[in-house]
Amino acid sequence: MSAIDEALRANQAYAKEFDSANVYMPPRRKLIVITCMDSRLMPDQMLGFGIGDAHVIRNAGGLATDDALRSLIISHHLLGAAEVMIINHTDCGMLTFTDETLRQQLQASTGATPQSPACFLTFGDLEANVRRQVAKVRSHPWIPQSVRVRGFIYDVRKGELNEVSARAQEACA
Amino acid sequence: MSAIDEALRANQAYAKEFDSANVYMPPRRKLIVITCMDSRLMPDQMLGFGIGDAHVIRNAGGLATDDALRSLIISHHLLGAAEVMIINHTDCGMLTFTDETLRQQLQASTGATPQSPACFLTFGDLEANVRRQVAKVRSHPWIPQSVRVRGFIYDVRKGELNEVSARAQEACA
Repeated sequence: MSAIDEALRANQAYAKEFDSANVYMPPRRKLIVITCMDSRLMPDQMLGFGIGDAHVIRNAGGLATDDALRSLIISHHLLGAAEVMIINHTDCGMLTFTDETLRQQLQASTGATPQSPACFLTFGDLEANVRRQVAKVRSHPWIPQSVRVRGFIYDVRKGELNEVSARAQEACA
Repeated sequence: MSAIDEALRANQAYAKEFDSANVYMPPRRKLIVITCMDSRLMPDQMLGFGIGDAHVIRNAGGLATDDALRSLIISHHLLGAAEVMIINHTDCGMLTFTDETLRQQLQASTGATPQSPACFLTFGDLEANVRRQVAKVRSHPWIPQSVRVRGFIYDVRKGELNEVSARAQEACA
């Protein structure tokens, strides 16, 4: 059975027991999480979310990319979210390669050089990367200073979050 | 208590019970989900994922944006994912406003006109939108034809997934 068909079978069971028809669009906790797509991260479970609680934005790395900012601005201005958690994690794949090597590999194997993605946004220092993402959100002119933004590193071996210190964040902002 | 502090308290309990230290980086089911940030969507629960099973990419709308494609290419080429589910959903916020009105509102209230985000990527037809995202993934030169891509609409009132038919997808691809 394909992985998609396996997921669809699980969804049939989920829908049978589904009892949250009266949950509405705005996130109840007014919270947005930006985190990595990594399969070891289960944001709802690791942060104690129930259905309807929080917006979750995920991409490779857990980055405040232009697309994440697009989502975040919609979340804040149209749906009332007012706190942002940015969560990177230990043993992230983005620490293990470089833009250059992946690009060369793809160009060599496909012969194609598409305009997008323009870069893969790898990084070498996890804490510095979190600080950069926090600073990027805080400095966006469409995100008011009233929105609280905090950065964290999730330890995939321990299941725990550790905050990247606010002082260091400010020093690099 | 702030929503972030509430999430951190929940994480302390999660970490105490955490027993998945030996789960590794590549997604076990070789599956990638692209879906919306909406708080009513709980991808792991609604698709039956355990820790380590699948990559999950989320943004406003559940779109195959340039950033989602960046993540997907990394997921496939470096971590072996080979099936893609694109999941939009009923009652999506992206159906309720237009790029133009939000942009005008933000410019008026902040006086700023940042270059990014260049657009908010709203849409008016859910099925057509899913087909466009599927086509976008299928046609990317760095995503081989061997990668299976299927599109779905999640019903937020019923908890169930419905596939957007492959035939219609092909007609619009």
